[in-house]
Amino acid sequence: MLQGRTWVFPNTPYISASAAVGGPFEAQGPLADDFDILHGDLWLGEDSFEKAEKKLLEQACEKAIDKAGYKKDDMQFYLAGDLMNQVISSNFSARTLTIPYLGLFGACSTSMESLALGSLLVDGGYAKRVLVGTSSHNASVEKQFRYPTEYGSQKPPTAQWTVTGAGAAVVTSEKTGIKVTSATVGRVVDMGIQDPFNMGVAMAPAAVDTIEAHFRDLNITASAYDLILTGDLGKIGHRIAADLLKKHGLKVAEDKFGDCGLLIYREDQPVLAGASGCACAACVVFGHILNRMRRGELHKVLVVATGALLSPISYQQKESIPCIAHAVAFEAEGGGRSQ
Amino acid sequence: MLQGRTWVFPNTPYISASAAVGGPFEAQGPLADDFDILHGDLWLGEDSFEKAEKKLLEQACEKAIDKAGYKKDDMQFYLAGDLMNQVISSNFSARTLTIPYLGLFGACSTSMESLALGSLLVDGGYAKRVLVGTSSHNASVEKQFRYPTEYGSQKPPTAQWTVTGAGAAVVTSEKTGIKVTSATVGRVVDMGIQDPFNMGVAMAPAAVDTIEAHFRDLNITASAYDLILTGDLGKIGHRIAADLLKKHGLKVAEDKFGDCGLLIYREDQPVLAGASGCACAACVVFGHILNRMRRGELHKVLVVATGALLSPISYQQKESIPCIAHAVAFEAEGGGRSQ
Repeated sequence: MLQGRTWVFPNTPYISASAAVGGPFEAQGPLADDFDILHGDLWLGEDSFEKAEKKLLEQACEKAIDKAGYKKDDMQFYLAGDLMNQVISSNFSARTLTIPYLGLFGACSTSMESLALGSLLVDGGYAKRVLVGTSSHNASVEKQFRYPTEYGSQKPPTAQWTVTGAGAAVVTSEKTGIKVTSATVGRVVDMGIQDPFNMGVAMAPAAVDTIEAHFRDLNITASAYDLILTGDLGKIGHRIAADLLKKHGLKVAEDKFGDCGLLIYREDQPVLAGASGCACAACVVFGHILNRMRRGELHKVLVVATGALLSPISYQQKESIPCIAHAVAFEAEGGGRSQ
Repeated sequence: MLQGRTWVFPNTPYISASAAVGGPFEAQGPLADDFDILHGDLWLGEDSFEKAEKKLLEQACEKAIDKAGYKKDDMQFYLAGDLMNQVISSNFSARTLTIPYLGLFGACSTSMESLALGSLLVDGGYAKRVLVGTSSHNASVEKQFRYPTEYGSQKPPTAQWTVTGAGAAVVTSEKTGIKVTSATVGRVVDMGIQDPFNMGVAMAPAAVDTIEAHFRDLNITASAYDLILTGDLGKIGHRIAADLLKKHGLKVAEDKFGDCGLLIYREDQPVLAGASGCACAACVVFGHILNRMRRGELHKVLVVATGALLSPISYQQKESIPCIAHAVAFEAEGGGRSQ
């Protein structure tokens, strides 16, 4: 069902299970216990960071399928995307999984883009069991978008730290403790920011645009949610988003407005303005947040995953940064059979 | 409705209008009359090939919307992808169009991936009017995947020529002459081919896998279609696909089995094994084929767009080429109000 640009899911797709996989830096963070698998090194026994990233995504997918009590052949569709050129982490994981595959690109908004579409497939009767996932790897992303980490180039305090990890979820029509109730598709918002070391600022207006559309489409206010969580705005972007919400007359209580990029690392980890990367929202939501919902600590949550849709080429050609945010609303029904 | 991995669309999404835009090389081809806009130079007045590609896509989208008698604000969602790193042609066109946007990646299968999902949104009542599109540009793709064309590097006869162009379609719930009846989602198939100058061979098994699934899921044979058209297998891949179909016991008459990569250029244009690129299937189908359906020359057509999901990095790391094919079935109802 469509309201504005929000899909409402009356047939309630459910999160059957979800999984999060992280690297050594994530293992030192405050959410370590919410990861299903944590790796001690960045290579995962592979000979390239790209292959390591693919492995992270495969492990998250396999773990989510396993926790849901399924086999990979039970999955009817696999929706995934990532930050690598030509989304190779997703493509190659789809080769391993051999599930009918739809490749996506939403940069760091991919976790919620894939979940929105996966939930729609289940809601509309176009699938019974869908696997969604995304990944990022600090070293593969740094190498591709900036410099190889070995160069040791310095960054400004507005820069964010790309999460090494992957998150995946199995969406089904079978009742579990956590349902997906609606999803709002983002529009590209570009306020003219050109600095790729200041993504939070670039993405904040896109997050606010989607939150505003979500409220308007469903005729609700922030009070409908226990928590509204943006994807990876970081310290600076989060503050700007909060200011913009206020400016637009949308009252969101400070303690109910969070950002995945501020949750995954400790204050004293050297991540500058916070975390980012496709795995940021994916790991925090598919791990920590859904676990909190399973424990009954959160009842209704809106996740607004943000993505900066630039490329090194578009930046070099002096283009500004087009940004997007896709939102998905979760609701815990109690019972907690979601794994 | 789901059968196997095929979505059947009982509420029949319709092609309200479609458009194709091409470059100078496409203007010399046999399908020139089927393009809505043809450009005399590769730059389109822009200062980079990437910006020229974005412009091709924007023009195809705007033309399709215009032919359908709509304004861009009437479009509820825009689904697009391309071959550029981080699909920047699509992202930046979405910025221009300001339509709620879902970025996709399916390499040269994107035309049918976007149309499959767009049709599903309309069929399921999740949208009334959806815009889908994709693009490629010979020079931007050569530069990114191989060498800048100015280097003049030689290629083997198995190589294919990337189409400079873009195709777009408006899918709506309003009855027109052409409906989308079903779509089959591809699986990644990788037969171990590692040569990026021999994509047709790599992609042929993926096309056959999807055609086979489509027939099985709908319990039909090739006789259900006037034409089965693969995306961009080229001369060598097309022959292999025909052989494989025979080997799998699927009888497809030779004159009913075609390939977009063999249609868009003249025999004497120097394109080696044929055409490729996201725009290949998009221009041929959204231009030529739909025009033939509008004129009553074709009644039922299955388009199987093929994509090679590699990246320069995956190739350099000695990975083989994972391939996919997404199929969409079109049916002409007569009347021909589809523009």
